[in-house]
Amino acid sequence: MTAQKEIGHLLSQVRQEKPLVHNMTNVVVTNFTANGLLALGASPVMAYAKEEVADMAKIAGALVLNMGTLTSTEVEAMIIAGKAANEAGVPVIFDPVGAGATPFRTATARELLNKVNIAVIRGNAAEIANVVGENWAIKGVDAAPEEGDVVTLAKMAAKQLKTVVVVTGVQDVVSDGDSAYIITNGHSMLANVTGTGCLLTSVIGAFVAVEKKRIVEAVLEALCAYEVAAELAADKAAGEGPGSFQTAFLDALHHVHPEQVKSGARVEQQ
Amino acid sequence: MTAQKEIGHLLSQVRQEKPLVHNMTNVVVTNFTANGLLALGASPVMAYAKEEVADMAKIAGALVLNMGTLTSTEVEAMIIAGKAANEAGVPVIFDPVGAGATPFRTATARELLNKVNIAVIRGNAAEIANVVGENWAIKGVDAAPEEGDVVTLAKMAAKQLKTVVVVTGVQDVVSDGDSAYIITNGHSMLANVTGTGCLLTSVIGAFVAVEKKRIVEAVLEALCAYEVAAELAADKAAGEGPGSFQTAFLDALHHVHPEQVKSGARVEQQ
Amino acid sequence: MTAQKEIGHLLSQVRQEKPLVHNMTNVVVTNFTANGLLALGASPVMAYAKEEVADMAKIAGALVLNMGTLTSTEVEAMIIAGKAANEAGVPVIFDPVGAGATPFRTATARELLNKVNIAVIRGNAAEIANVVGENWAIKGVDAAPEEGDVVTLAKMAAKQLKTVVVVTGVQDVVSDGDSAYIITNGHSMLANVTGTGCLLTSVIGAFVAVEKKRIVEAVLEALCAYEVAAELAADKAAGEGPGSFQTAFLDALHHVHPEQVKSGARVEQQ
Repeated sequence: MTAQKEIGHLLSQVRQEKPLVHNMTNVVVTNFTANGLLALGASPVMAYAKEEVADMAKIAGALVLNMGTLTSTEVEAMIIAGKAANEAGVPVIFDPVGAGATPFRTATARELLNKVNIAVIRGNAAEIANVVGENWAIKGVDAAPEEGDVVTLAKMAAKQLKTVVVVTGVQDVVSDGDSAYIITNGHSMLANVTGTGCLLTSVIGAFVAVEKKRIVEAVLEALCAYEVAAELAADKAAGEGPGSFQTAFLDALHHVHPEQVKSGARVEQQ
Repeated sequence: MTAQKEIGHLLSQVRQEKPLVHNMTNVVVTNFTANGLLALGASPVMAYAKEEVADMAKIAGALVLNMGTLTSTEVEAMIIAGKAANEAGVPVIFDPVGAGATPFRTATARELLNKVNIAVIRGNAAEIANVVGENWAIKGVDAAPEEGDVVTLAKMAAKQLKTVVVVTGVQDVVSDGDSAYIITNGHSMLANVTGTGCLLTSVIGAFVAVEKKRIVEAVLEALCAYEVAAELAADKAAGEGPGSFQTAFLDALHHVHPEQVKSGARVEQQ
Repeated sequence: MTAQKEIGHLLSQVRQEKPLVHNMTNVVVTNFTANGLLALGASPVMAYAKEEVADMAKIAGALVLNMGTLTSTEVEAMIIAGKAANEAGVPVIFDPVGAGATPFRTATARELLNKVNIAVIRGNAAEIANVVGENWAIKGVDAAPEEGDVVTLAKMAAKQLKTVVVVTGVQDVVSDGDSAYIITNGHSMLANVTGTGCLLTSVIGAFVAVEKKRIVEAVLEALCAYEVAAELAADKAAGEGPGSFQTAFLDALHHVHPEQVKSGARVEQQ
């Protein structure tokens, strides 16, 4: 696990290596995801056709599967891409957007988890709970008010799914089933811009692409960089609204310095 | 009908209830639609797959059907969703983008109106005219210069379609077939940002979701809130261009106060 | 060829005629493309369904085919649209996004070039090289560092494809196979915003729509207007990041004056 004094170094590595992140994501957030990854310094690519997803996934640094506006055709392509990534040793990051909101989403999340080896799964508490068969309230694709012990949920989910689990909300929890970390950075304005969760998942992909062995460390670095940038943006756009915040956030992802991430990060091991 | 003194109260209700608005909209405007609804205080969700649209529509406060980049698969899913919404008493709002621009769009608009019970239809004069079989000039999906009597068109369309009709343009006209109202708020800069009409349709969905009985009132409140926000944004971004206006508009949707809507609204009954 | 003293006049013509540009583009950039064209003064329309693309292409001033997130269904529709445009004398502009990144993209680019008569093709050096069977490095859909003689590449590609070729990068090269022009306007910040290449292709469509005979002239005017606007935006957003730049760029596309394009353009004939 990253010592606090090391946090920030993977951000430099992302900017230096510019990893190719293959996103199979939803139509709402494609533009924001690409712009966020570019701003950060990574190389986004979007490809969906079953004729090419395996080829693209194999040459990527990470594959991100996001089921925000899934169709059966896309699910099929996601499985093809996921299997190709698995074979090529490319880490797969999964965002089960809206799991639990409809039976189709619940079933799709489980099918993907059954057929593809996932390195990291990120969702809000309701989505992660649904994926592991727990029943937490959810309305649409946005997070329900969180109740219960999120740390317990994250640990349990990580153990059951044999993957690193990220539960985001007012506080973010990361667990590999053994340890758990709480990150208290971020800003409430993130909830007023669509796709900030989805982009975070893709940013995790960029960090895991440059640190494939110590996944928990990569995830923690990704969360800290992302949320410290959000804090900088909220300062910049203070008194404005979500339009100004979104603009300032893209600027901040571009400018945030590893030293700012290191000094601003609030990570606590549970 | 809303007395002028009451205008603004539904905006508070939208922000309090945060209605889930299920959008089946075009790929051009999905991000802007989600961000606009979030900025306003509503909860957007996008879902397109025929496997899940009925489930999503049933739990939504309103269903918005927008045929801006329709495909035959999406039309099929829209009809499934629309019928499910009708059965569950969820109001359906319809935006016949580009009706008349191609035979496929004209036919689709009519098929949707035949198979789904629509609570509100919103379009520019050429689109609404096309839907009811009148012949007004149209170029692509943008409004042609308006000729003829828009109030007459709105009333006639509302009677024929047995729905509330909103014809937007330099002036906006709302009619339920009996009464008609003219709203003269708004700003010309709205025409320089793509999806401002589509987002308005979804915002109407948010207002109708919290006031399902008095539809005309909900629509008028939606239009006033939306266009007063546009005026605030235009003031803020004066001398800049459509990029700055779009940012300021999202900010304004977030900040516009019911009292500002009440004092700024210019609604006239015909 | 445009004398330097005439550069800028087609921008006025685009704003006056507001040509309808039919875009069949990728899901990442649809919103930005529509907003960029609107900001400039053109009329964007997006239509993808095979049931309507021929009808839409025929009434457009130009058809833009962009294979950034292609699927086999969309390729089929692009060919239908392209053939309809050819029959109607509507110029077709082609953006082979990511050609060479996967076999599917390489094959699709060639299929489109075989079946549709293309007026202008625009890509980075790796994409253009792939299309004509040369082997330049490419990673994902973003330009690889350019090596070799881009002018030679552009001329050779134009001769082979019998079309006007635009190779964009740090410098942009335009060739019809005989002459070649180098444009040195633009700004590095363009590379930090997704879709700036795709939007440029669509802007070329808008200029060719109003000057169908002198294609090279139209392309040069498009590039100069676009990149002088980028320079204005970079000045405006100096010290900020890609979020602010994108906003300023849309503003600049709206405000850039033909006289600014004329005085700022740096075009050199080779």
